[in-house]
Amino acid sequence: MKKIVRRNAFYAQSGGVSAVINASACGVIETAMRCRQIGKLYAGRHGIIGALTEDLIDVGRESAATIRALKHTPAGAFGSARFKLKSIEQNRTEYERLIEVFRAHDIGYFFYNGGNDSMDTALKVSQLGAALGYPITCVGVPKTVDNDLPATDCCPGFGSVAKYVAVSTREAALDVASMARTSTRVFVFEVMGRHAGWIAAAAGLAGRGAGEPPHIILFPEIAFEQQKFLDRVRQCVGDCGYCVIVVSEGAAYADGRFLADAGTTDAFGHTQLGGVAPLVANMVRQAHGYKYHWAVADYLQRSARHIASRVDVEQAYAVGKAAVELAVRGVNAVMPAIVRKASKPYRWVIGQVPLAQVANKEKKLPPGYIRADGFGITEACRRYLEPLIAGEAYPPYKNGLPDYARIKGVAVRRKLSGEFKI
Amino acid sequence: MKKIVRRNAFYAQSGGVSAVINASACGVIETAMRCRQIGKLYAGRHGIIGALTEDLIDVGRESAATIRALKHTPAGAFGSARFKLKSIEQNRTEYERLIEVFRAHDIGYFFYNGGNDSMDTALKVSQLGAALGYPITCVGVPKTVDNDLPATDCCPGFGSVAKYVAVSTREAALDVASMARTSTRVFVFEVMGRHAGWIAAAAGLAGRGAGEPPHIILFPEIAFEQQKFLDRVRQCVGDCGYCVIVVSEGAAYADGRFLADAGTTDAFGHTQLGGVAPLVANMVRQAHGYKYHWAVADYLQRSARHIASRVDVEQAYAVGKAAVELAVRGVNAVMPAIVRKASKPYRWVIGQVPLAQVANKEKKLPPGYIRADGFGITEACRRYLEPLIAGEAYPPYKNGLPDYARIKGVAVRRKLSGEFKI
Repeated sequence: MKKIVRRNAFYAQSGGVSAVINASACGVIETAMRCRQIGKLYAGRHGIIGALTEDLIDVGRESAATIRALKHTPAGAFGSARFKLKSIEQNRTEYERLIEVFRAHDIGYFFYNGGNDSMDTALKVSQLGAALGYPITCVGVPKTVDNDLPATDCCPGFGSVAKYVAVSTREAALDVASMARTSTRVFVFEVMGRHAGWIAAAAGLAGRGAGEPPHIILFPEIAFEQQKFLDRVRQCVGDCGYCVIVVSEGAAYADGRFLADAGTTDAFGHTQLGGVAPLVANMVRQAHGYKYHWAVADYLQRSARHIASRVDVEQAYAVGKAAVELAVRGVNAVMPAIVRKASKPYRWVIGQVPLAQVANKEKKLPPGYIRADGFGITEACRRYLEPLIAGEAYPPYKNGLPDYARIKGVAVRRKLSGEFKI
Repeated sequence: MKKIVRRNAFYAQSGGVSAVINASACGVIETAMRCRQIGKLYAGRHGIIGALTEDLIDVGRESAATIRALKHTPAGAFGSARFKLKSIEQNRTEYERLIEVFRAHDIGYFFYNGGNDSMDTALKVSQLGAALGYPITCVGVPKTVDNDLPATDCCPGFGSVAKYVAVSTREAALDVASMARTSTRVFVFEVMGRHAGWIAAAAGLAGRGAGEPPHIILFPEIAFEQQKFLDRVRQCVGDCGYCVIVVSEGAAYADGRFLADAGTTDAFGHTQLGGVAPLVANMVRQAHGYKYHWAVADYLQRSARHIASRVDVEQAYAVGKAAVELAVRGVNAVMPAIVRKASKPYRWVIGQVPLAQVANKEKKLPPGYIRADGFGITEACRRYLEPLIAGEAYPPYKNGLPDYARIKGVAVRRKLSGEFKI
């Protein structure tokens, strides 16, 4: 019988968090705990920074109930970080430090849960063996609410923010419709997606038929034309009595300037009071005089685990599980991906893609998903999006509030002396 | 056997809508349909305007399934209106018109579903018999997300917005905690409540122990002191690593000026880009340089039927039902009220109060509900609020989205000639 070489594993969360990144953590942890090839599982406190500063959380000290509860807990339970490793040539010290920490704790598996930038970091770590002689198996775990990762049909985190945005748009639209006779005529709802319009597109699911809200979606992919937009708003208020507008934070003019950067100043002359929703709402009022309301969901949308998509939760767990299974089979420098087999009924499986195909790349909304007039989604887009928001996965409640997990976060005893400045 | 005099009834929705005002409609309608004293039930299209313009909806033409589904449908299915009747002395024409329409359709019962202003309108209508010789029984049905109606322990609509705000605060706070190490330190969440801090107070339920978010709540009842606030933010970031701030749209300086009116201008010099959240966030950045995010929930919070409080839905239905029961017993000029019998376990019954005790009055957050430092809620406040967000009452879903009711809204044939200008 072949003797199994047992090495420890490292897991970290990276970049902006989501409603289901902890479900991926749950998938990684529950699977790793069952793998004979994996000894201890450590999590980086605040992502890769935890590795660089030797601030490791001993995941084995968490109860099975806490780990299970991560599946219904939003945000990053282990702490995330916006921190991108430079190339090995540019900052060799950081990589040497990583190896020092990994060696001290016998870490042979590296799981990195994040988006485009994070897959770049994962790719660099996966090259440590070849570049610096430290053998490590590195697998990325996809996560981004923006859905802009290439080479996967969709990305865990997106389905839930899509569901939140579609549900909120439908609800707020009913509100506006109720009020429009004597009060609010125009409602502007700002959603995330700095460079890609996936989240804005999801709002389009709120309407079931022609002329239903949202009446106008402003995508980052479509250059904003003020007069065309204002004409459409007036037409819509004339036809429907009100107008619901969903605007991506990344909406921009033809020259690339974000609408939100259009020079808003406060009473003190400071710029960036920001928010594209108030700007668009004000633009409408200046032109047409309609009474308006606006909302900016910001973090609410990406942390809204209470209205997560069941499909999203399942996929988030599945990519975490698959990452561990790939790693213990010795597959390095890959990311589990979601492969769509059919849309109706929806069927998907987990595939795998090389990290090099994912790192630093962005998948925008394809032109065929945006209606010819630029203000809505096509049937093809609806077919793509609908399965991703399917099903509910309610968290348990206590005293009227979701009962979210909290880790103990027991630190692993440091083995290295000296601090590492990041 | 006494012969029952059967007369028709009129129901209307008024003012800002809520996640559960249709549940009250459902209570009114299902109860009225069973009452032998009530013939037809008509709803005003867009509130009292529907009565003035003789634009009545024949509720009897809606299916029982649609009526039942109103219980899980947010906003005002029959249309609401912001329209306050002047006094009979000031605008006798409007009252004469109301009587004309009521007489034409033999309306003997008037149910008005709204807040403070609406109870004033209901009170005036209840006096039509004495003042203008048209006998009508008028009962108010309480509704306001602001919870500022006097003479009732709480107000249908509030429990659900309270739950939404508490849940969203808890979720967003987890997000900020994840990101704080390298990114966002301060999160500002703006909630409704122009004159009373009930909704802001509900955010306080998100935290379970001392030092838990939200770290700072800015109430309309407490004069805003900029330096004291900024000091607290810095202390909080120092202690916890981040700071979650919930601000009421009605937050104001000692002289009564709203923070949101503090002179924001856009690039064109126009004022009222508005929103107190971006203003507060910017104030913090100017003082301390922390990276921030902010959210403005606006209509999302009051239409969020997907996360409604079960207690709130039940109370909303119950006041609708009670209104009809009171009316057919001949009780005029009253409003069913919610009477708390106990907080733990929570027990409530329906009582009744004269409309004159409710009309135009506002119930603010009592001083004993605000912590001595002015930045949080007390245990007494928590005891009051907690039962109101208890229980979930999920709507049914279809294709990943809540399946909300839509009325046919068949118009009653007009009996009067001529238009009424409003």
